[in-house]
Amino acid sequence: MQVSDDEVKTFEVVIDATAKAVGKMRNEVTVYSGVSGNTFQMATDEGPVHGGDSSAPPPLAYFATAMVTCLMTQIRAFSKRLRIPINDVSVSGRCHWRGTVVGRNPYETEPIGFDLDIDIDSDASLEDLKRLIGAAKKGCFIEQTLGQANEIGHRLKVGEDWVEV
Amino acid sequence: MQVSDDEVKTFEVVIDATAKAVGKMRNEVTVYSGVSGNTFQMATDEGPVHGGDSSAPPPLAYFATAMVTCLMTQIRAFSKRLRIPINDVSVSGRCHWRGTVVGRNPYETEPIGFDLDIDIDSDASLEDLKRLIGAAKKGCFIEQTLGQANEIGHRLKVGEDWVEV
Repeated sequence: MQVSDDEVKTFEVVIDATAKAVGKMRNEVTVYSGVSGNTFQMATDEGPVHGGDSSAPPPLAYFATAMVTCLMTQIRAFSKRLRIPINDVSVSGRCHWRGTVVGRNPYETEPIGFDLDIDIDSDASLEDLKRLIGAAKKGCFIEQTLGQANEIGHRLKVGEDWVEV
Repeated sequence: MQVSDDEVKTFEVVIDATAKAVGKMRNEVTVYSGVSGNTFQMATDEGPVHGGDSSAPPPLAYFATAMVTCLMTQIRAFSKRLRIPINDVSVSGRCHWRGTVVGRNPYETEPIGFDLDIDIDSDASLEDLKRLIGAAKKGCFIEQTLGQANEIGHRLKVGEDWVEV
């Protein structure tokens, strides 16, 4: 079967996470991937300084892992698609946020910067590696999400109803 | 010691993740939290349909877990701070992306929507619960990140140098 050069196809990726609070600050999460049909069990916790028991990594560790690995996955996947062979890839990422506290109010947070250092072992030219990274950025779900302002919908359960909050 | 009502303090939160590719699509990640000084080992993989071995959850499962649990942590932490007692909290989140493929090019992705359904067991008034959720949104690192357009810095190792790409 031939695929024409400009044929456009789309696909949807939906991930559902259901979490319940347990212990002091621990959360137990069931994640369902609509892509693979697989279910994953994950857990987060906080350290004692935040009232937790350190029984699992904190939420931000999951975020940092997602940011770094999503790009790595695309680099490896697109290496084949673009025929730019690579032998190995390592990525280091830094996530930097700031919190601000006024008086005794709860703190407010803001992102300061996100940086990725990419180390690729390959005989490909620098130009080809840049092309590969460029494609990986456009294909990385996390990077495309962070690159735009997203509205998050929130609903609160009130009796048997769900109310926008 | 008294804290004045309008004293402003800031704090920095830095999370470092270093990941190496192993196996077909597996990534092994060491996450260091500059907050707690703790190190966490995490791993991602893809299912066979994406060339992986399903040896760990995919990157997007980590993202969904981070999104849901970061807000839950703030709801529990700020419940104490704001003196709005809660007995329990559960949150379900949905992350929705779309991929677009033109011809045989690598796919490109875009976020479609992020939604959180919050179920709080509490005797507090609806007004107080809305106030608690409002504070949790402002304190949630992930939510504040998703709510704005972020630039991600990328550097590629070329010989012994790091080059912006």
